[in-house]
Amino acid sequence: MTILQIGAGGVGWVIAHKAAQNNDILGDIHIASRNINKCESIIQSIHKKDNLHDQTKKIIAHEVNADSLEALITLIESVKPKLVINAGPPWINVNIMEACYQTKTSYLDTSVATDLCSPGQQVPEAYDPQWNFRNKFKEAGITGILGAGFDPGVVSVFAAYASKSLFDEIDSIDVMDVNAGDHGKKFATNFDPETNMLEIQGDSFYWENESWHQVPCHTRMMEFDFPMIGKHKVYSMAHDEVRSLKEFIPAKRIEFWMGFGDKYLNYFNVMRDIGLLSSEAITMPNGQEIEPLKFLKALLPEPTSLAPNYKGQTCIGTWVRGKKDNKSKSIFIFNNADHEVAYEDVEHQAIAYTTGVPAITSALLYFKGLWAEKGLFNMEQLPPEHFLELMPNIGLSWDVQDLGDLKPEIKDLSK
Amino acid sequence: MTILQIGAGGVGWVIAHKAAQNNDILGDIHIASRNINKCESIIQSIHKKDNLHDQTKKIIAHEVNADSLEALITLIESVKPKLVINAGPPWINVNIMEACYQTKTSYLDTSVATDLCSPGQQVPEAYDPQWNFRNKFKEAGITGILGAGFDPGVVSVFAAYASKSLFDEIDSIDVMDVNAGDHGKKFATNFDPETNMLEIQGDSFYWENESWHQVPCHTRMMEFDFPMIGKHKVYSMAHDEVRSLKEFIPAKRIEFWMGFGDKYLNYFNVMRDIGLLSSEAITMPNGQEIEPLKFLKALLPEPTSLAPNYKGQTCIGTWVRGKKDNKSKSIFIFNNADHEVAYEDVEHQAIAYTTGVPAITSALLYFKGLWAEKGLFNMEQLPPEHFLELMPNIGLSWDVQDLGDLKPEIKDLSK
Repeated sequence: MTILQIGAGGVGWVIAHKAAQNNDILGDIHIASRNINKCESIIQSIHKKDNLHDQTKKIIAHEVNADSLEALITLIESVKPKLVINAGPPWINVNIMEACYQTKTSYLDTSVATDLCSPGQQVPEAYDPQWNFRNKFKEAGITGILGAGFDPGVVSVFAAYASKSLFDEIDSIDVMDVNAGDHGKKFATNFDPETNMLEIQGDSFYWENESWHQVPCHTRMMEFDFPMIGKHKVYSMAHDEVRSLKEFIPAKRIEFWMGFGDKYLNYFNVMRDIGLLSSEAITMPNGQEIEPLKFLKALLPEPTSLAPNYKGQTCIGTWVRGKKDNKSKSIFIFNNADHEVAYEDVEHQAIAYTTGVPAITSALLYFKGLWAEKGLFNMEQLPPEHFLELMPNIGLSWDVQDLGDLKPEIKDLSK
Repeated sequence: MTILQIGAGGVGWVIAHKAAQNNDILGDIHIASRNINKCESIIQSIHKKDNLHDQTKKIIAHEVNADSLEALITLIESVKPKLVINAGPPWINVNIMEACYQTKTSYLDTSVATDLCSPGQQVPEAYDPQWNFRNKFKEAGITGILGAGFDPGVVSVFAAYASKSLFDEIDSIDVMDVNAGDHGKKFATNFDPETNMLEIQGDSFYWENESWHQVPCHTRMMEFDFPMIGKHKVYSMAHDEVRSLKEFIPAKRIEFWMGFGDKYLNYFNVMRDIGLLSSEAITMPNGQEIEPLKFLKALLPEPTSLAPNYKGQTCIGTWVRGKKDNKSKSIFIFNNADHEVAYEDVEHQAIAYTTGVPAITSALLYFKGLWAEKGLFNMEQLPPEHFLELMPNIGLSWDVQDLGDLKPEIKDLSK
């Protein structure tokens, strides 16, 4: 048994740790990145935390340029993994899927191939480049699992579980994501500032009454009382799972919400107002061309540097409202993750942790033959019970909160 | 008769216009800058506004590198001006003064040679490099007038007038500067963003009870009800006139205050928090070294581009509190300047206008022999009556507001 992980950023860090903790099932672990040093740092950390469960199994670093299909095929053919876990940036997804198809190797990733903000890459078209592989994966006799992080991923499993077992019909699915942690910096982003800031300033898309609705960022808002972390403002935002949930779970409205504190939004607005969040290059007096977002990235703290001092919790979940036995019903299925607990386990913060744990939970289900049907699947298409049973053992618990008949009260801030 | 103006930025723009309107007294006008195109743009604007009063007099553009003493001497010797008006950046002051000394030419500037925030260049040492020329100017038989803008400049004349004619003893001199204008941009600075942002984030120095007090920026605040523009918050800030007033006008406390709106301070704080106001270079992934402040300068609107759409007024003045005939007394001597009126007169905004008009008022007093004593003088050392009589004719009125016994109420925000 062997897995090949491609990508060695924050999510890759957690995936590798969790794979090592479960290597009695997953076998040898190969980690590949454009920068082999990043793989080696992760392996060092795994040894330091004594996370390599079966010491007889190998863990090996590789260098690979994932932009090259040929390089990917060569690597896969030499490693011969049972599963490729893609923990890299969005734009390498399609290349890795093609390499898996050509080498007849199963595939798993944690986020969508598109940037969710450029024309043709927004929510309504989000999975198109990857869903093109449906017939190819079936034909090759391999399994592909898409979006196996927390959101997308676990929240989609929550929605599938609600649809299958808790509701007869669904009015609304609201995916809610709040990080109430504190990294002690005045301002920093939890992952790549360039990707993060592009994502946050894009228009939001939600699905309602059989059609897509597009609204500017931070113009639709709700307040919600989250378990453990209390009341937070959340804002409608473009996110991949809205596209796939719309495809697989019938509901009148489907929407993604991210929590932003007033302080965070103030920083965001000032940076946007002065032009710092633009990816259009400006010209310096000496003729240098510089993209403001790339300059901002160089200015802000390196996201991985935040983990050691991160305190507090995240809360991510799926709020489902609908009917069961002709009675209105409203529930929140959720997880609370603690930054310090995550750091103690794998030397990283909870945001990467909540993405990495579900990826390895899904990989284990594939290895156990429970999520191993041939073809290409988003998480909400697969049987939710096995996943919900296994995930707490891998590091993330979940719970259901009965909200009585609580109804989302959405405020339109654009007026 | 001839004047030579060095510097063709915003203040230089207004000085040249005002000199042209008064060229029957000042004679031929020579304008020199590192970039001759800037001089030619000013001359074009003067012709466009029909501001060359005596059409028989010349107005001529020159190129000069003011960092080169030799180039300055060559230029002065070829032009043979009766007065050099320095409208350039602070660091060229000393060079131009040396060139004036060597060529025995009188000199006038509008702001101090130091940056007011680097070690050794702060308020308590502000005029040292220029006051070193006192004996040399007297010996050469020339006149030097320092800080002949509005603040320093007119506010210093106001203080001298108060001290001479309105008070027997002075408790406090508070120089108050508010721009209540609106340029229609989300964020912009009224002069060079790099200089402006360095100045604003420096510690403030005020003189009280015979010693200097140093406090972090924006930690001492007052509210004041300004004529025409209403209530504004002002913050203690480092400014050159505190140094010279302390030398020449006896008072228990002398302090400079600048108005900053809450919105402006919010932008400032965010930019400072993310490191954008630093002059220490950061390294981009490709190895490029970039100073954040220089990047910010390239990002923000060019200050001169703001003038055409600027609306509203400034209010700058001197609040003096003390005793006359053993009775407490509190007065505000001030000017209101209107951005649109300034633009109509000289195609520039009121902030440059309020600096350029006093410079030409002072130059005219020198030409009339009223402010022409041999030696080096700050504005508060010269007889204030002539100046206060002439300035309204050049473009800026002034008035005295009786504040009864109003006392400055300073809030310490550092706690």
